Amino acid sequence: MTKVLVLNGPNLGRLGSRQPEIYGSTTHSQLAEHLVSTGAALGLDVEVHQTNHEGEMLDWLGRAADEDLPVVLNPAAWSHYSIAVADAVAQVGLVVEVHISNVHAREDFRKHLVVSPYATGVIAGLGLGGYDLALRHVAALRVSG
Amino acid sequence: MTKVLVLNGPNLGRLGSRQPEIYGSTTHSQLAEHLVSTGAALGLDVEVHQTNHEGEMLDWLGRAADEDLPVVLNPAAWSHYSIAVADAVAQVGLVVEVHISNVHAREDFRKHLVVSPYATGVIAGLGLGGYDLALRHVAALRVSG
Amino acid sequence: MTKVLVLNGPNLGRLGSRQPEIYGSTTHSQLAEHLVSTGAALGLDVEVHQTNHEGEMLDWLGRAADEDLPVVLNPAAWSHYSIAVADAVAQVGLVVEVHISNVHAREDFRKHLVVSPYATGVIAGLGLGGYDLALRHVAALRVSG
Amino acid sequence: MTKVLVLNGPNLGRLGSRQPEIYGSTTHSQLAEHLVSTGAALGLDVEVHQTNHEGEMLDWLGRAADEDLPVVLNPAAWSHYSIAVADAVAQVGLVVEVHISNVHAREDFRKHLVVSPYATGVIAGLGLGGYDLALRHVAALRVSG
Amino acid sequence: MTKVLVLNGPNLGRLGSRQPEIYGSTTHSQLAEHLVSTGAALGLDVEVHQTNHEGEMLDWLGRAADEDLPVVLNPAAWSHYSIAVADAVAQVGLVVEVHISNVHAREDFRKHLVVSPYATGVIAGLGLGGYDLALRHVAALRVSG
Amino acid sequence: MTKVLVLNGPNLGRLGSRQPEIYGSTTHSQLAEHLVSTGAALGLDVEVHQTNHEGEMLDWLGRAADEDLPVVLNPAAWSHYSIAVADAVAQVGLVVEVHISNVHAREDFRKHLVVSPYATGVIAGLGLGGYDLALRHVAALRVSG
Amino acid sequence: MTKVLVLNGPNLGRLGSRQPEIYGSTTHSQLAEHLVSTGAALGLDVEVHQTNHEGEMLDWLGRAADEDLPVVLNPAAWSHYSIAVADAVAQVGLVVEVHISNVHAREDFRKHLVVSPYATGVIAGLGLGGYDLALRHVAALRVSG
Amino acid sequence: MTKVLVLNGPNLGRLGSRQPEIYGSTTHSQLAEHLVSTGAALGLDVEVHQTNHEGEMLDWLGRAADEDLPVVLNPAAWSHYSIAVADAVAQVGLVVEVHISNVHAREDFRKHLVVSPYATGVIAGLGLGGYDLALRHVAALRVSG
Amino acid sequence: MTKVLVLNGPNLGRLGSRQPEIYGSTTHSQLAEHLVSTGAALGLDVEVHQTNHEGEMLDWLGRAADEDLPVVLNPAAWSHYSIAVADAVAQVGLVVEVHISNVHAREDFRKHLVVSPYATGVIAGLGLGGYDLALRHVAALRVSG
Amino acid sequence: MTKVLVLNGPNLGRLGSRQPEIYGSTTHSQLAEHLVSTGAALGLDVEVHQTNHEGEMLDWLGRAADEDLPVVLNPAAWSHYSIAVADAVAQVGLVVEVHISNVHAREDFRKHLVVSPYATGVIAGLGLGGYDLALRHVAALRVSG
Amino acid sequence: MTKVLVLNGPNLGRLGSRQPEIYGSTTHSQLAEHLVSTGAALGLDVEVHQTNHEGEMLDWLGRAADEDLPVVLNPAAWSHYSIAVADAVAQVGLVVEVHISNVHAREDFRKHLVVSPYATGVIAGLGLGGYDLALRHVAALRVSG
Amino acid sequence: MTKVLVLNGPNLGRLGSRQPEIYGSTTHSQLAEHLVSTGAALGLDVEVHQTNHEGEMLDWLGRAADEDLPVVLNPAAWSHYSIAVADAVAQVGLVVEVHISNVHAREDFRKHLVVSPYATGVIAGLGLGGYDLALRHVAALRVSG
Repeated sequence: MTKVLVLNGPNLGRLGSRQPEIYGSTTHSQLAEHLVSTGAALGLDVEVHQTNHEGEMLDWLGRAADEDLPVVLNPAAWSHYSIAVADAVAQVGLVVEVHISNVHAREDFRKHLVVSPYATGVIAGLGLGGYDLALRHVAALRVSG
Repeated sequence: MTKVLVLNGPNLGRLGSRQPEIYGSTTHSQLAEHLVSTGAALGLDVEVHQTNHEGEMLDWLGRAADEDLPVVLNPAAWSHYSIAVADAVAQVGLVVEVHISNVHAREDFRKHLVVSPYATGVIAGLGLGGYDLALRHVAALRVSG
Repeated sequence: MTKVLVLNGPNLGRLGSRQPEIYGSTTHSQLAEHLVSTGAALGLDVEVHQTNHEGEMLDWLGRAADEDLPVVLNPAAWSHYSIAVADAVAQVGLVVEVHISNVHAREDFRKHLVVSPYATGVIAGLGLGGYDLALRHVAALRVSG
Repeated sequence: MTKVLVLNGPNLGRLGSRQPEIYGSTTHSQLAEHLVSTGAALGLDVEVHQTNHEGEMLDWLGRAADEDLPVVLNPAAWSHYSIAVADAVAQVGLVVEVHISNVHAREDFRKHLVVSPYATGVIAGLGLGGYDLALRHVAALRVSG
Repeated sequence: MTKVLVLNGPNLGRLGSRQPEIYGSTTHSQLAEHLVSTGAALGLDVEVHQTNHEGEMLDWLGRAADEDLPVVLNPAAWSHYSIAVADAVAQVGLVVEVHISNVHAREDFRKHLVVSPYATGVIAGLGLGGYDLALRHVAALRVSG
Repeated sequence: MTKVLVLNGPNLGRLGSRQPEIYGSTTHSQLAEHLVSTGAALGLDVEVHQTNHEGEMLDWLGRAADEDLPVVLNPAAWSHYSIAVADAVAQVGLVVEVHISNVHAREDFRKHLVVSPYATGVIAGLGLGGYDLALRHVAALRVSG
Repeated sequence: MTKVLVLNGPNLGRLGSRQPEIYGSTTHSQLAEHLVSTGAALGLDVEVHQTNHEGEMLDWLGRAADEDLPVVLNPAAWSHYSIAVADAVAQVGLVVEVHISNVHAREDFRKHLVVSPYATGVIAGLGLGGYDLALRHVAALRVSG
Repeated sequence: MTKVLVLNGPNLGRLGSRQPEIYGSTTHSQLAEHLVSTGAALGLDVEVHQTNHEGEMLDWLGRAADEDLPVVLNPAAWSHYSIAVADAVAQVGLVVEVHISNVHAREDFRKHLVVSPYATGVIAGLGLGGYDLALRHVAALRVSG
Repeated sequence: MTKVLVLNGPNLGRLGSRQPEIYGSTTHSQLAEHLVSTGAALGLDVEVHQTNHEGEMLDWLGRAADEDLPVVLNPAAWSHYSIAVADAVAQVGLVVEVHISNVHAREDFRKHLVVSPYATGVIAGLGLGGYDLALRHVAALRVSG
Repeated sequence: MTKVLVLNGPNLGRLGSRQPEIYGSTTHSQLAEHLVSTGAALGLDVEVHQTNHEGEMLDWLGRAADEDLPVVLNPAAWSHYSIAVADAVAQVGLVVEVHISNVHAREDFRKHLVVSPYATGVIAGLGLGGYDLALRHVAALRVSG
Repeated sequence: MTKVLVLNGPNLGRLGSRQPEIYGSTTHSQLAEHLVSTGAALGLDVEVHQTNHEGEMLDWLGRAADEDLPVVLNPAAWSHYSIAVADAVAQVGLVVEVHISNVHAREDFRKHLVVSPYATGVIAGLGLGGYDLALRHVAALRVSG
Repeated sequence: MTKVLVLNGPNLGRLGSRQPEIYGSTTHSQLAEHLVSTGAALGLDVEVHQTNHEGEMLDWLGRAADEDLPVVLNPAAWSHYSIAVADAVAQVGLVVEVHISNVHAREDFRKHLVVSPYATGVIAGLGLGGYDLALRHVAALRVSG
């Protein structure tokens, strides 16, 4: 089975309790469980990680670059300023960036996306379903593709 | 079956011949055919339209608002300046905006997205596969949802 | 009787169903009817048109320039980007620009008015009553004036 | 009769002598007289004031807020920088902002309107006739309305 | 007892009736009374003034500079454009600027603070309690200090 | 003979009556006639079209791309905002953009040229003579070239 | 006793040796000790933490959100770019942001405050005394309030 | 003798005590006395006024417009934001704007001069001597001229 | 024969060796020779000059102003910053500005054209042929015209 | 006698013929003669130079720095971009910058003054009389001073 | 021997595999080894560290401040946004900032350097050789100096 | 021996007397002498030139392009606006740009570097030692390399 990393950035560990009107009431561990089983159905071996530490995220992305692993990435707040994450993403072959909310419809600074130019593509505003679509896209390219 | 409109904006009628290194070699009618059959498999009755006329696009979006039809929309160049399309999108309940290429990775003006704040969500940079994901998202909400 | 053109731009055909909390519940045909009778009372022969096509609007404005007809114009979304409409307006002798809502109190991009510098004057935020005032202004200049 | 305040800002006391090619040759006291009689015909008890002192304008607007009086306001130069006037306007129920000239067609800084987002609506570029229209709008809402 | 001036800028005289959801329901004279007694408890002789006239504010700040009086200042709307108030503040030894609401969380123009660079420090968003803290800071420096 | 398309954008149909101090008194049909005969003398089969509809312009440019026809294009007002026209131009092999007036010497927004980066070259400010020079350039490349 | 977290961001561990002309000569542990005893006098159980790791700060703020603890926060350099800290702050009920120096009076980039819109309020430029005032404000709301 | 108004704006009444390293130690009344006698020597009847009230300044400028008096004007802080003063200056025939300090060499906002485009000319950075030069210029035009 | 000056700015002396993929392989002296003979055929006495010294360019343009000579000008890099060249151009009756490459399609700073507003017109992106067209335009106005 | 350099920048050699509606009809040599005799009357030994070469201007300013000569400088177009002239001016003890026209009342780019922050002071808009005032200021400081 | 810290920021641990066309094929450990021996030859005791964690970098810079150690710093992506690193650098006596690539010749955001104003100096674009030059500079100041 | 040009721009001829607190007290001829001998020790035949004339600098850079000579360039003030120098640099194979002071730590306009994107690399803020390092870098590439 193709290994895929799902990497979630800062504050996403509090999914479910954080602003549920925007992010919903599913917790991060429920999401992780869901993605592992969704992945399995698509022939993907999904590993889900979350961190509040930019350095840890860089390490994971470095590993993805080294092992040529596709990545589904929600950079969360780092989307808007972490050029370090952008630089790390630029080294990875296939990165689908996911945003749970529609970042274009919120504060102006959320329209400034520094990672996106280096990702393969971006899915935003489709809720947690965005992760499912991202996995499906990876599967289409790496499993059936 | 749930009716869905797939609406493609300016210059997309030349898909296949237009900058194939960016947009691929599938023609618009091949895309349309593919989406109809993909939709059918998902329980969706897909209608695909393309126009170079902003006014025609507004008419279709007005119809979607009147009949509460979900829309998969690629506003193409209008994404970057047509506030008229944005205003029309704001009236529709469910709009998934699709961009074939990663607009964040091209000219600066393509990062300026005037329609996106009024769409439900956005999928960019995943090629023609972005349309499939959009339909799947619609199906999840309107068919199974 | 003095002929006057009332020209309404994109998405105004859906008046009444479009965001009624902003634009009210009167439909476009009700508005048209009202303006024709208001005009008649002021000695004006009012023609009301609406289009989603910029080209059609330009044709009407060209006719107004040729026949020296006063115009009451709601450019709607085109207010914010259509330099073509601005150029056409610059050729007409008397143009009162009307906005139903207070464009200065909404999204920032609605404060950017490209047509207004070429209009005679602007009425904004006074609801559908703004059209009445515009007609009255035209009547004061062209009928009694 | 409904009381209405017509409040004119800085340098408008010199109407008639100030740049007559832009502002016309009617003096401020002639304008005041005209508005009182126009108002009476509409069932409005019009009080006209002019001041060069921002503080005095704030006091009048405060009174309008306290007594729920509709206001026709020409903030003149303050339109472009006095956030104090904007804050005062925000407290008043009905404010029609009037500009004699078309502020959108003059120097760039006159397009920057800090009061307008807090007014009910704006009439610009229709000469002194703009005041008449404003009174008529007030009458429609407060007398007949 | 150390004399302290508490100086409130435009529209603050309407505290209590002005937008109570932002500014609360305490009136300006209740606030003044409260600050005088709070000051007394801290060993401060507090004088509270409010004005809608920039010139009057400049006179008070000039007096503070002449007599070396500490000032607690709420410049209200002037915070955002009155360089005259900024210049006057620059002459005073100790000025604690107070904003009742969190100016950083409101309209963009309220983030532009022209007086603050010349004040000693700024307290914002802590309601009327911000004045108490400011007095306490003055007391710490001038009474016990 | 080499076929060439001369494509004129919005409001150019009113050449001769529109602001003759800027655009001269030649009408569009006189211009068309002149260009056909000028072209013939250069060995070019010139077709002249004018439209107020962006969509129609896109169709013509699409045809030029399909048939590899050189184009002389005056995008008029679209020069400043129509990314759709720019995208269409990017698909055509040889496009000489013509502006009758010196766009650099007029309003600031006319210096913002969104089509030009995708054209082969630009001629501006040389009056209707600019079209002649453009045809001559095409002839040099496609006829004698 | 009400628990309060005092959270200090990057480089504040070097208080006392870092630019003492700006930040004073008190060390971080002296500050911590002082705040614990000040807090105790106010009926607050104060915990003081400092970190150079954004991730650790996010964890603490997440804990404050979970346990509904009030926070006194000095985000230091993160104030100007860490949207991750801003997002974390937005989840906490009561956050008083403290800056030792007057950030408005220093380099331009220090006027750009990304966390402040999500804090309850801000105290800046009052030296270490700002922490005392912040605790006092918390006590007023959570102890006596 | 030709009458000349020397009009000084906000905070200039504190000349001598205000930032003497920038503005020198001469008081405003000493300056006034000096200018009266300098003027007399040049055949000018000099009246010197200072105000902290924008409205009072507007009144004086209105008088200068009515009586066609030349003005030497130091708008002080108003130079940078008072469009009301700019509008009033635009009505006066001859206005020499004077700044004691070199406004181009101080804070960035002091380079933004809103009055200067409407003045006849500007003298900055030559200390109090700038007033003498301004009077001399007036004398050259109005006395000897 | 009508005298025409062809004036080439900085670095154009290295035509032929400088970035031939952009500027072609013709040398400056070959270009000069070509333009002299092209001019002769059009009834023009062409003088070609090149300089790396702004001052020399200003002298030539001053001579053109004095002797009313038409100028074909390639300001090269000065196009983007030399207001001195712009000022000199403003004094000449007929100036056709030529750019060999399409300046709109290169670095952003090349879109900033400070000379163009003062030229009669601009030809860009048509290679060395742009000079021929410019001469032809001059001939049409000054020889046949 | 105190030596003074009057240094005039680009295009000023054409004074008298260049845009006389802005710059008047006095020629540069007439101006020079006038300034020498004006200077003599003030006890100043005036040398007047004009150059179109930035390098020559830098040499003269370098000489002024070496010999501690006061300078009256009209940088003309260089005022707006030549940081080299600004750097040279920064080395000279006393520099009065003169502009014949009111640069604040012309094109926007003329409000951008790069030399002025390094000059002692600036006189603008007072015509050629500005040079006289500048000499008088120098005399006051260096002769009588 | 003088101790020197060479501190490398995010993603530099992947030197050799990361974009070798930009960064070369030397690995980080090879670089470290090389710098230690280069340093030794210059009389420097070089310690090389790399981290993806901003907090760790701040700790190292804090140590350098405490022990007065010179630093050779490649902040990598943090160069463009980490004000925390900038603040830490401001505390260190001697910091030579090194960039392997020419940051001025890449994406626009890489020209925005937030750390550089606080470093002693910067070397960019000279490849890994930049580190050698930096060490040599340190040696010149601290060993021979 | 490899020939190297060291080219110094405007005002650098006054090294030693110009702002010695920034640029040091070494004169330009001392620097030149030092660089010739330093170069000799590295196997380089160093020629040092300084000019205040942009045109002369362009000529030298043109020569370097023709003869493929490496260049050490201090563009001084031209760094910030001379696109002509940038264009000339773009033609040279190896250019190390040197700034004596840390341009990033001075006025904002000194951070705008127009030449740097076209240089090979940049050394700034390391004093005159920057030239030595630049020569050493050239030697590494061209002598030993």
